[in-house]
Amino acid sequence: MSVKIALLGCGTVGTAVAKMLKAQSKDFAQRAGDELELVGIGVRNIDAPRDPEIDRTLLTDDLEALTTKADIVIELIGGVDPARTLVLGAIKNGATVVTGNKALLAAHGPEIYEAAAEADVDVYYEAAVAGAVPVVYGLRESLAGDRVETVMGILNGTTNFILDEMETNGMSFDDALKLAQDLGYAEADPTADVDGHDAAAKIAILASLAFHTRVSIDNVPTTGIRSITAEDIAAAKRDGFAIKLLGIARRQEAGIELSVEPTLVPLDHPLASVRGSFNSVVTESAGAGRLMFYGRGAGGDPTASAVLSDVVAGASHRVYGGRAPRELTYADLPILTPDEGTSSFRIEFEIEDRTGVLTQLSGALADNNVSISTVRQSAATESSARLTVTTHEARTADVKSAIEKIKAADYVKDVLQVMRVEGN
Amino acid sequence: MSVKIALLGCGTVGTAVAKMLKAQSKDFAQRAGDELELVGIGVRNIDAPRDPEIDRTLLTDDLEALTTKADIVIELIGGVDPARTLVLGAIKNGATVVTGNKALLAAHGPEIYEAAAEADVDVYYEAAVAGAVPVVYGLRESLAGDRVETVMGILNGTTNFILDEMETNGMSFDDALKLAQDLGYAEADPTADVDGHDAAAKIAILASLAFHTRVSIDNVPTTGIRSITAEDIAAAKRDGFAIKLLGIARRQEAGIELSVEPTLVPLDHPLASVRGSFNSVVTESAGAGRLMFYGRGAGGDPTASAVLSDVVAGASHRVYGGRAPRELTYADLPILTPDEGTSSFRIEFEIEDRTGVLTQLSGALADNNVSISTVRQSAATESSARLTVTTHEARTADVKSAIEKIKAADYVKDVLQVMRVEGN
Repeated sequence: MSVKIALLGCGTVGTAVAKMLKAQSKDFAQRAGDELELVGIGVRNIDAPRDPEIDRTLLTDDLEALTTKADIVIELIGGVDPARTLVLGAIKNGATVVTGNKALLAAHGPEIYEAAAEADVDVYYEAAVAGAVPVVYGLRESLAGDRVETVMGILNGTTNFILDEMETNGMSFDDALKLAQDLGYAEADPTADVDGHDAAAKIAILASLAFHTRVSIDNVPTTGIRSITAEDIAAAKRDGFAIKLLGIARRQEAGIELSVEPTLVPLDHPLASVRGSFNSVVTESAGAGRLMFYGRGAGGDPTASAVLSDVVAGASHRVYGGRAPRELTYADLPILTPDEGTSSFRIEFEIEDRTGVLTQLSGALADNNVSISTVRQSAATESSARLTVTTHEARTADVKSAIEKIKAADYVKDVLQVMRVEGN
Repeated sequence: MSVKIALLGCGTVGTAVAKMLKAQSKDFAQRAGDELELVGIGVRNIDAPRDPEIDRTLLTDDLEALTTKADIVIELIGGVDPARTLVLGAIKNGATVVTGNKALLAAHGPEIYEAAAEADVDVYYEAAVAGAVPVVYGLRESLAGDRVETVMGILNGTTNFILDEMETNGMSFDDALKLAQDLGYAEADPTADVDGHDAAAKIAILASLAFHTRVSIDNVPTTGIRSITAEDIAAAKRDGFAIKLLGIARRQEAGIELSVEPTLVPLDHPLASVRGSFNSVVTESAGAGRLMFYGRGAGGDPTASAVLSDVVAGASHRVYGGRAPRELTYADLPILTPDEGTSSFRIEFEIEDRTGVLTQLSGALADNNVSISTVRQSAATESSARLTVTTHEARTADVKSAIEKIKAADYVKDVLQVMRVEGN
């Protein structure tokens, strides 16, 4: 007897999975309770060049037929179609599914989880969020005895690399993006990364797990990093902050707040020192307080490590019984609209440099229920000054309407920047 | 039907466990698949004052009788006896055991794991290592598809608090220890913490999990922090290092190297910025590369969070079948003696300030297979100089014998410090 594994996809990650399965077969057999046997590798083009360690006799282009022969199906082809059909077919056949496909889960997670529950099979997806960083395990298992309040993190290595280059070397966004593309960190079409969609898919998955509520990518208001300049980053640093693209999911009194946006993080916060293409996720929970998980969010070997841990867990359940934690939606919390969220903000105004302006501006904020935490004024030109305000926690809607009103006042020349602040 | 829970011990952690079990009973029932029912709390003195939320009708001083009524026994009484007898009794009765008792596991782990395997029951102990930091889950599950090379971390919050106070506020060891005692971070008898025994018990547990080999606390050469001065810390900082008490377990070619000792960590390494009483564990593995886990290593609520996650996992196995990963010892790797380990070292010599000394000293190191990575000489007094050498990776035995020989040379006045360097 053995546990039969079908691998769908043989790109960077798939190749690493196949090689590690072979190199560590004895270890994995001990840990899973039985041999893991790779019975086939499904690819689009059998004749394409491959790593010499890939056993070409395992290759097939009939992916559907391959899934019927396996106890565990590893889906690494990415995208929604035909991944969705293949995964649902595998579940129907009673196979355990291991996937690294965040796009599929963000778009069709509920359908897949329900099909899995009905067929009583496990679905694993550690590799779909933050590569090797074990945050799916963290939320599904390590925090199962706790009440999660916040999940927040650097979920996209490409944008973190770009922001880090802009911070460390003063590069422009365009130059840093080009460097990321040259190094293979960013794709030719960088939209999914730099506009925040990749991070939004991941925070939706993590929020579902953390809050036992159905959260889709469409629930996540998303702003990317295209508008961030090296000057913004340098100015933030002078004030004691780093700018990071954070995915944030937080339990508020009225429901779950979600967001992907460039965010100011104090320099002594653990997320501020996450360099290069690393990923990091911070959870805050009632019992454990703050936990941080940190590691490589992409790459063949790190992602393969996450895939294979899921394979070992799934195989162990097939050998010894039991099951993976199911995707629970019992809490069914309301999801807040962007305006209903609350946060601290840093706002930079250019104002007339004359007596009484600060009083008028702080009055206008107070009229909209926004209270000031810190304020700093510096001369900009002869007749104008730059005023940097950090607010206490305030409703986003209130901050927006305060800014609209202040913009219209005669003493305000411009609103230079409005940015969320976290971790203060 | 319900899953019946017996709680042994009602100190800070036990009280937090009982309160969180009540406050989150609905969540836990959803996650475990059935109600978790607290059927009794075993204590030494029923009449002692307790938190008002503790249901006194649950208290009993017959701990052995209580364990026979439970599906899951939570052992939080600490120490070896009677914890060992109670845990072995619970296992024999077929109960799942959740323990936070590192002393028990470090001394009697193998006996307990074997009894559990024989009775086919789960033993969980996330709370025994680094409190809420989910590093037992990390090694048992998240890295089950990988090959761990190194586990290394700040495993004792008390000593990290003391070293941090010495670094940040220039305090002496004695003053920092007194502050830790006043704040409740250190016990009246601080031996277990400051002499490294607590960290040694934890790294032994982690090494067993990481390397699938039986490792006991007696295998861990242990040096505490009593001899570290504020001057040592300041000097290290000037050279770009923090001094941290690290527990280290590393796979070397010849076997597993183990150590607890004050260690120099580069200031830009993630472990260098772990402040106060926080804990942090770094793993290096073939696939995932470097992962870091960070959080609160002690305290009632954080430890209770770890205990309750284990309870939910254990309860879920009782409801749906399956089992926790067993403690595997199949790899059975040799354990190196302290002298067989290899590491980089930083050595400070006081030498005669005359021509040719550096040549003689580097020659003496080379004769013992120790090669120099960096060297820095500064004037100490009129006739003597201070020489700071950082070595490349070298065998500990070779470094020791080189130092013995150098000590005897006429050009050396003193060897001021020898300290391990990690994470370069």
